[in-house]
Amino acid sequence: MKLAIIFGGKSYEHEISIVSAIAMKDILKHELIYIFLNTNREFYHIPTDTIKSKLFSSGEYKKSDKLLLKNGAFTKKAMFGEKTLDFDIALNIIHGGDGEDGLVSSLLEFNNIQYLGPRKGACSVAFNKFLTKGYASSVDVKTIQYKYYTNKSQISVVQYPVIIKPVTLGSSIGVSIVKNQEELDYALDVAFEFDDAVIIEPFIQGIKEYNLAGCKIDGEFVFSIIEEPQKAEFLDFDKKYLDFARTSKAIEANLDDEMANKVKETFKKIYNNTFEGSLIRCDLFIHEGEVYLNEINPIPGSMANYLFEDFNAVFTSLASSLPKQRNITINYEYVNKIQASKGK
Amino acid sequence: MKLAIIFGGKSYEHEISIVSAIAMKDILKHELIYIFLNTNREFYHIPTDTIKSKLFSSGEYKKSDKLLLKNGAFTKKAMFGEKTLDFDIALNIIHGGDGEDGLVSSLLEFNNIQYLGPRKGACSVAFNKFLTKGYASSVDVKTIQYKYYTNKSQISVVQYPVIIKPVTLGSSIGVSIVKNQEELDYALDVAFEFDDAVIIEPFIQGIKEYNLAGCKIDGEFVFSIIEEPQKAEFLDFDKKYLDFARTSKAIEANLDDEMANKVKETFKKIYNNTFEGSLIRCDLFIHEGEVYLNEINPIPGSMANYLFEDFNAVFTSLASSLPKQRNITINYEYVNKIQASKGK
Repeated sequence: MKLAIIFGGKSYEHEISIVSAIAMKDILKHELIYIFLNTNREFYHIPTDTIKSKLFSSGEYKKSDKLLLKNGAFTKKAMFGEKTLDFDIALNIIHGGDGEDGLVSSLLEFNNIQYLGPRKGACSVAFNKFLTKGYASSVDVKTIQYKYYTNKSQISVVQYPVIIKPVTLGSSIGVSIVKNQEELDYALDVAFEFDDAVIIEPFIQGIKEYNLAGCKIDGEFVFSIIEEPQKAEFLDFDKKYLDFARTSKAIEANLDDEMANKVKETFKKIYNNTFEGSLIRCDLFIHEGEVYLNEINPIPGSMANYLFEDFNAVFTSLASSLPKQRNITINYEYVNKIQASKGK
Repeated sequence: MKLAIIFGGKSYEHEISIVSAIAMKDILKHELIYIFLNTNREFYHIPTDTIKSKLFSSGEYKKSDKLLLKNGAFTKKAMFGEKTLDFDIALNIIHGGDGEDGLVSSLLEFNNIQYLGPRKGACSVAFNKFLTKGYASSVDVKTIQYKYYTNKSQISVVQYPVIIKPVTLGSSIGVSIVKNQEELDYALDVAFEFDDAVIIEPFIQGIKEYNLAGCKIDGEFVFSIIEEPQKAEFLDFDKKYLDFARTSKAIEANLDDEMANKVKETFKKIYNNTFEGSLIRCDLFIHEGEVYLNEINPIPGSMANYLFEDFNAVFTSLASSLPKQRNITINYEYVNKIQASKGK
């Protein structure tokens, strides 16, 4: 299979997308074609044999061929006319804005490019932590109680510590744990620098976090192992960042069968039909025997490859059962009816 | 103001978008430029003075200039090179798929075109009736109880009558009221012809429906009157369709101040920050003194002009306070840090 990896994007997570994309070279046993989206929303074809993160920080990538996204293809200028970039399907590995918010999904859908990654509706509920809360409640999954505030709200906290999260950023960007009133204003300033709204949750000391990745292939769920990620007080951006280059296998968490099943059932409810076509990672809490959704990563760092026994096999199998666009035929019955009724 | 009206789209509501777009000619006192999106996802510039619905049913629109969407502009081929279509902002009036599902919002955002209409995140929660339910609960707005089923679910109904709605279609397409077991299978077949999932709600005979349109301009809400729409048992597609050409003023519903305020407060919760940049219509129920959200129309038929005293003024004012995209600067701090730690 020839796989086009789309990465970069106009996003605070631009850099971690680069790292994730490069990690794919060591993981996927397919012919890879790299398509970089810069922050000016221009596409470039980066040669696979020479790709490295420095190309992007130095701006050297601009010497590569520029691409144009058209119906059914990415094209580049050639000696005579233009040349089509040859690949079978695309993988959207743009973390954060542009990738996880549904923008690139929409572009690919509009241009009839088959892709592995979350569809636009799935993006919206996963990308916005406030919408995630509502979605979780619809699919009957518990989340930690929360308050939602915009940058115009009066914000008051009754009981500390709390955790403050910008609603639309991943990778812990702009997230703070706040222990008292004095720290609150600063933490809010930080969060509102990145976003116009936040959610505030109680910070539960020592709550156990578990990660589970998976996907649905031909109607059947395929799961990774469940990992209990190492964490400091919580994962900060630097620490998480290095996770995006992670390829070494994770260690299975020590959960009994009943609890492991509860975690998997929660994942199934979240994945639902909504996340079809994508391989996602759910970050879950277990607190007093109950499973809570923390967040949905619809494009997890390095595709959560390290959680799978045979990632390449799962990926390849998912890539061959991607959702198709519905065919819609317009017969102009209603327009004709109106014209008839107007006597035109 | 020069206003580009984007209409059509690959959608079951393609035709009503055409009708809505043409109705704008009688409503908006701006210079209008018409951009048609056909079901092959090609853009055409349709001359304003000759636009009529027949152009599209006959296929005659193909004689018009084809447009290419590029960074910052729609362009067409000209004698020498290409020519930019001149307008100040765009209005997205593609009802249903492509328009209300966030696809066109994403395209416009990607290409830096300022537009009036729902942003992509707003589209997702309004377009999918299942996500609307979750969203409403997040913003503390009641909805009618429901069950969600996919086309692979075992579906059983305990108490009739119920109303069956495909999750992602507007304009009552695929919607049925079902009175008994015999009607159920047929109604489900109809719904699943259009969509992969449905919600089923109890059908409450004689429940009062009210429509309210509005928007937020510079932080202040502007409301239309509240209308109690005429309805048969419920509005079917034909009847609703004619609404899309509606320009005659609606009659204000007979609600006391307290109830009217409750309706407006519900609208505010729904609109929130999520719908900024758009003028939406909320369809609400009042049942035993409580307000319930029925659906959110993020691009209402003919922009719900008929509900406003001076629609053109509201529209113009909203058009000059559209949300801006956040500026994101990437400094490659993390990529540099990784390179340093690798000694490369």
